[in-house]
Formats: sequence, C-alpha cells, structure tokens
Amino acid sequence: MKTDRLETFADGVFAIAATLLIISVDTGVGSPAGGRLRHELVTAWPSYVAYVVSFLTIGIIWANHHTVMDQIDRVDRTFLMLTVGFLLVVAFIPFPTRLVAEYLNSVDARAATVAYGITLTLTAVMFNAIWFYAASGGRLLRADADGRTVRGISKTFVLGPWIYLAATLVSAISPKLGAVAFMLFTLFWVVESSFFGRDRSDQVEA
Amino acid sequence: MKTDRLETFADGVFAIAATLLIISVDTGVGSPAGGRLRHELVTAWPSYVAYVVSFLTIGIIWANHHTVMDQIDRVDRTFLMLTVGFLLVVAFIPFPTRLVAEYLNSVDARAATVAYGITLTLTAVMFNAIWFYAASGGRLLRADADGRTVRGISKTFVLGPWIYLAATLVSAISPKLGAVAFMLFTLFWVVESSFFGRDRSDQVEA
Amino acid sequence: MKTDRLETFADGVFAIAATLLIISVDTGVGSPAGGRLRHELVTAWPSYVAYVVSFLTIGIIWANHHTVMDQIDRVDRTFLMLTVGFLLVVAFIPFPTRLVAEYLNSVDARAATVAYGITLTLTAVMFNAIWFYAASGGRLLRADADGRTVRGISKTFVLGPWIYLAATLVSAISPKLGAVAFMLFTLFWVVESSFFGRDRSDQVEA
Amino acid sequence: MKTDRLETFADGVFAIAATLLIISVDTGVGSPAGGRLRHELVTAWPSYVAYVVSFLTIGIIWANHHTVMDQIDRVDRTFLMLTVGFLLVVAFIPFPTRLVAEYLNSVDARAATVAYGITLTLTAVMFNAIWFYAASGGRLLRADADGRTVRGISKTFVLGPWIYLAATLVSAISPKLGAVAFMLFTLFWVVESSFFGRDRSDQVEA
Repeated sequence: MKTDRLETFADGVFAIAATLLIISVDTGVGSPAGGRLRHELVTAWPSYVAYVVSFLTIGIIWANHHTVMDQIDRVDRTFLMLTVGFLLVVAFIPFPTRLVAEYLNSVDARAATVAYGITLTLTAVMFNAIWFYAASGGRLLRADADGRTVRGISKTFVLGPWIYLAATLVSAISPKLGAVAFMLFTLFWVVESSFFGRDRSDQVEA
Repeated sequence: MKTDRLETFADGVFAIAATLLIISVDTGVGSPAGGRLRHELVTAWPSYVAYVVSFLTIGIIWANHHTVMDQIDRVDRTFLMLTVGFLLVVAFIPFPTRLVAEYLNSVDARAATVAYGITLTLTAVMFNAIWFYAASGGRLLRADADGRTVRGISKTFVLGPWIYLAATLVSAISPKLGAVAFMLFTLFWVVESSFFGRDRSDQVEA
Repeated sequence: MKTDRLETFADGVFAIAATLLIISVDTGVGSPAGGRLRHELVTAWPSYVAYVVSFLTIGIIWANHHTVMDQIDRVDRTFLMLTVGFLLVVAFIPFPTRLVAEYLNSVDARAATVAYGITLTLTAVMFNAIWFYAASGGRLLRADADGRTVRGISKTFVLGPWIYLAATLVSAISPKLGAVAFMLFTLFWVVESSFFGRDRSDQVEA
Repeated sequence: MKTDRLETFADGVFAIAATLLIISVDTGVGSPAGGRLRHELVTAWPSYVAYVVSFLTIGIIWANHHTVMDQIDRVDRTFLMLTVGFLLVVAFIPFPTRLVAEYLNSVDARAATVAYGITLTLTAVMFNAIWFYAASGGRLLRADADGRTVRGISKTFVLGPWIYLAATLVSAISPKLGAVAFMLFTLFWVVESSFFGRDRSDQVEA
C-alpha cells in the first residue's frame, strides 16, 4: 500500500481533532446569568490556554508525522494498525483538554491534569511505536532515507514519553505546575521547530 | 467516474466518524460534584473501552475498504448509492457507542449492546452489498484483479454479518458477554491484520 | 483556479455535514429513566428516518456535484462565492434534521418540517445558481462538454426547487404528509440514480 | 516540504470549522415549550445571521488562502508553525459565533460582539503574519511570482486587522452597530470578490 492514503486519513483525524477542541472552550464557558458574560469570559482563561496548548500540540504532531512519513516508502498492515492506534490516542486529546479547561481552577485540577498527561504520554508512546516499527532494520524506510535524519528522529522521539511522563508526575503533585510544564514543553517545540528547524530543514524535511 | 473521489469522500466520513467517537466519552463522564472527578474518571471505564473498540472497528473498516477499492477499477451510480448507504451506517456507529459507554453498567445494558450489535451487523451487510455488487461477474473489477485475492475477500466478508448477528444475539441474553464478544472480535481482526496479513500482503494489497 | 481544490473543500463540507447528522439522533433519544432505554429507542424512530433521509440527500447532492464539476473546466471568483453560499446551505441541513427528529411526533411538527423544507428548497436554489452561472453561454464549461448532458442537467435541476417548495407547502398543511413527501422524493432520486442512471452513465458521467 | 500537504490540512480545518458553525444555531434555538417552536425559530434570527456571516468569512479566508498559496513555492518550519497558529484562530471562530447567536438580543451583547471582533482581528493579524513572512524578501515565493499580484495582496491584507479592530471598538460602544459592521464588511468582501475579482482574475489567481 502507498503511503499517501494513510496520510490523507491521518491528516483528516488531525484536522478534526484540532478543530473539535473548540467544543472544550464552549463547555468551559457555559451559560452565565444575564449581564455576567464578560466576567465569565475572563475567568474562563484556562479554557483558552488549554485550547491553545492542545491545538499547537496536535499541530506539532501533524508536522512531525509528515517528517516521519517522508522517510517511509511503503506501509504494511502492522504499520497500518499501529497508525490507527496512534490516531485513536490523538483523537482522544479533546476529552482531557475539556477536563483541564473545566477543572483547572477547582479541587478536581489534579484528576484533570493527570488525565491530560496520561493521554499525551500515550500519544508519545504510540508515535514511538510507529517510528521504531518502520525504522528498525530499515523495514519500511525509503531506499535513499538519510541516515543522519533517521538517527535524529530516533534520538528526539525516544525522549518524548519520558518528558510527558515527568510532567504527568508533576501534575499529580502540583496540578498548576504540571499545567505550566505542558505549556512550556509545547512552547519549546514550537520555538525549536520554527527557529532551529529552519537551519536543519534540508536534512529533516529532505 | 474514477474511484479516487469516492475514496476521498469515504475517507472523510471514516475519519470524522472515528474522531466524533470522543463525544461519547465526553457524555459518559459528565460533570461530577466537586472533588469527585477522579472517581468519575475511573468508573467511566466502559466509555474508554467502547471508544477503543469502535475506533479500531472503524479503522479496520477503513483499511478493508482500501483493500476492496484496490481491486476496483471504476464505479457506476448503483455502486455510488450503495457506498452512500454503507457510509450512512458507518457514520451511525458513534450513536450506539455512546449508548454502550453510558448504559453498560446499568439496567439498560441490553438495549444499548443490542443497538450496538444491530448497527455493526448492518455495517457488515452493507459492506457485503458493495463488494458483491462490484465483484459479481467481475462487474467493476480491474482487468488484472487477482482471482485469489478476490475469492479471499469474498470468503472473509461473507462471514461478517453472521458473526456480528451472533454477538448481537448474545447481547440480548447477556449484555456483558455480548460486549466481550464485540471486543474479542475486534481484537481478533487487529491481530489477524497485523500478523497474518503481513505474509499475505503481496496478495491482499497488491 | 483549477476545480480540484474546490472539490476537495466541497467534499469536506459534504462529508462533515453528513457525519454530523448523527448528533440529531443523539439529541432525539436523550437520557431516559432507568430501564426505559429500549422503549426510548423504539419511539425515537423519527430520528432514524430523518437521519437516513438527510444522509441520502447529502449523498445525492455530493454525487450530483461531481457530475456538475465534471462538465466544468475552470472556476472564477463569482463561481467560488456561489459555491461557498451553496455549501453554507448544505451545512445547515443538520439543524432542521434535528428539529424533525425531535418534533415530528409533537405539536411542533409543522414548524420543524417547514424549516426542513425551506432549507432543502434553498439548497436546490443555490445548486441551480451554481449550475446556470457556469453553464450559461458555456461560461465555465469544458470545451468538449457534451451538449446533451448539459441540457440533461439543466432540465433536471430546474425542477428541484419547485418540487421541494411543493413538499414544503404540503408540510405547512400536513407535517406528516410533508415528511412522507421528502422521503419519497429522496427515495426516487436514489432509485433513479441507481437504476436509470446506469444506462445513461456514459452521457451523465462522461 | 511541498505546499500541497499544508493546503490539505488547512482545507480540512476550514471545512470543519465552517460546518461546526451549525452547532451555534443549534444552541441558539434550544428546546422551547410545546407549540412554541415556530416562535422560537423566528426570534432566533441572530443565530442565522451569525451563522451566515461566519460561514462566508471562513469561505473568504479559504479562497484568499489559496490565492496566497498560489504565490508560494515551498514552506519551511517557521511558516508551518505560523500556519498552525493561523488555523488555531480560524478554528476558534465557531465559539464567539455561538456567543453572538445566543446573546445579541440580551444585556450580554457587548461581551459577545467584542469577543467576536477580537477573534476576527487576531485571524487577520495571523493571516498577515503568514503572508509577510513568506513575501518579505521573496523568502518563500515562486520564482515567477507576479510582482503586481504580490503587492496587491500586501496592500489589501495590511488593512484587514485595522478594519476588524475598528469594528471591535464600535461593538464596545454599540454592539448592534458592531454586528452590522461585521455583516457589511463580509458582504463587501463577497461582492468585491465576485464582481471586481472577476476582472482581475488573471492577475490575482494566475
């Protein structure tokens, strides 16, 4: 099977999951009593932050998925099923995002941020599963895949689950601190991608 | 009409239906009283299981739909309308998934699991309708369609409705047992696709 | 501008609008008291009928849109804006579908079916606007567009708004009769497309 | 990286955000007491206006995004991340649309229309960020990009944020007047695109 159909399906799930995030803002604001909408909109700031962080996270996953697929030549059924499992976790992200949006300023902040962290950790684990299944022994890689790029992806990816797991553990101790950790990690990726990525664009994106 | 437009539309419906499944988790958890979110998230496990089973089911349908379309060369209006009917049933899946997520641990488990089973049985029936309309007498098949692959699809597909019907009947007697049957059947397909499919990939996916 | 980007966007809206229809079923069923789900699922039959009729209607619109675009070679900004207006009405369909699903068996059946009819009438009007803008004087048609096909589309399309308007007026008198009219009209199109369309497929779909 | 994947993802977000707008109509109408649906549907007119204005706005953004991408040859990671940020704001539009739909005829009209205005202002700002990043020094432009078209886009785009900011300030003083300003601005764009755009189509869309 060619990779293009897989990418179309994955891009569809990424786009829909990202766009559905707005529903968590919708729930986070709710229906205030008359004359209180402005106040409600201001105090609902965790909804906006959660929306932005999750949208950027899915955006980065989308960009990285293309970087990965650019190194891959063909897919088999195992890779297909691993990708379905990966998309399953990505499409789950709107749910814990809604929880964080709704409960960050409540006694339930811990449960919400830990649920968010577990979801992102699983996303990183599944992303690793896809990549290492494809890359191990060059199983599905292009004949002309660049060794340096392949090693670069492997080195970066392998850190992902551990960083998200650490932020999840921080959330279990201090939910607010955990939320800040998720924000900073996302911000780091955006900046890293935008600035440093530029110089490496010839290697990473071929 | 070429097949590529049909596949784009179908892939869109598959991706959206799968991503919308998260709404059933959202409904399954609801808004707990303060300090009860963790408890709520733990007891909502049927929501997660229902989400995973339905997502994997749609993922497998998507993968199989491509296997089928790979054998097909052209489509006519009857095939188009059959496909719309097939997508209609696939896009219905999020509804009974929400029912199972919400009612599996209640006195309404029977109605929920039977509704789920009927939907999946109809999906399998419509998938057969598409396939046998296209394959009968080689009506829409590629000139170079592989006879062994075509017979392989026919043999596998024809079992689908009966297996789902059986699981639906089991649900009518014991909802919990029925739910386990749906899980096992999905799991079987994932494993079968991933491991055994690998050896046949040259035949099945051409 | 080429037509393919327009078709991708339109197909996206068609697929999403069709898949969102399931939300109207979700609302139509609601949360029954314990032990009443089966009863609720049975009495919610107008939800399923509304879902099926609207899904098939969008499916037929999708198929016809491709038949139209096959005759068109290029698009200009006016055609683009007309298409956005057309998609605006198609994406509106889930709303009156929800109304019919929820109110067909209530004193509000008239308002619900009339709202449904107005939406479908507007859809047919906008579809005509697109087609006649493109076809008038051959403005955007392919150089090799088949005269007979073009006249065939014109003759069929021009009837659409009047038939839907008639069904809307029937709904204003008898909502149930109006609902049956919408069903029959959709059924007629599906059957006409599937059976008669087959013989004309060489002309209509080129 | 080629531009086509970026356009597929962006088109997905545009199509989904536009189609999700119907949810704001759904919320705007609600569940009336028996026999009151017709009255409810008539008094919910701000929902329809908000739906139409937001749908057309996203439609124009979609059309303009293609005009922009037609001048662009390649994308780098910074452009990718700017586009994700741009889509993030576009996907946010359904939320303030729902607010306007629900609160335009209430004491909360000010908060709703200002939130709407801020979102559209940010959309225009991000659209400028994308364009000027790509166009500055011809960084990502096609080798054969037409100088006049490029200057034309720059001149038009740079006005966007200021016009939306002005309409937002008007909303802060008189919400109804602000709503009219958003309507007129959208209408102007649709008409300008459809009529004047036609004469320039050779330059603008190349």
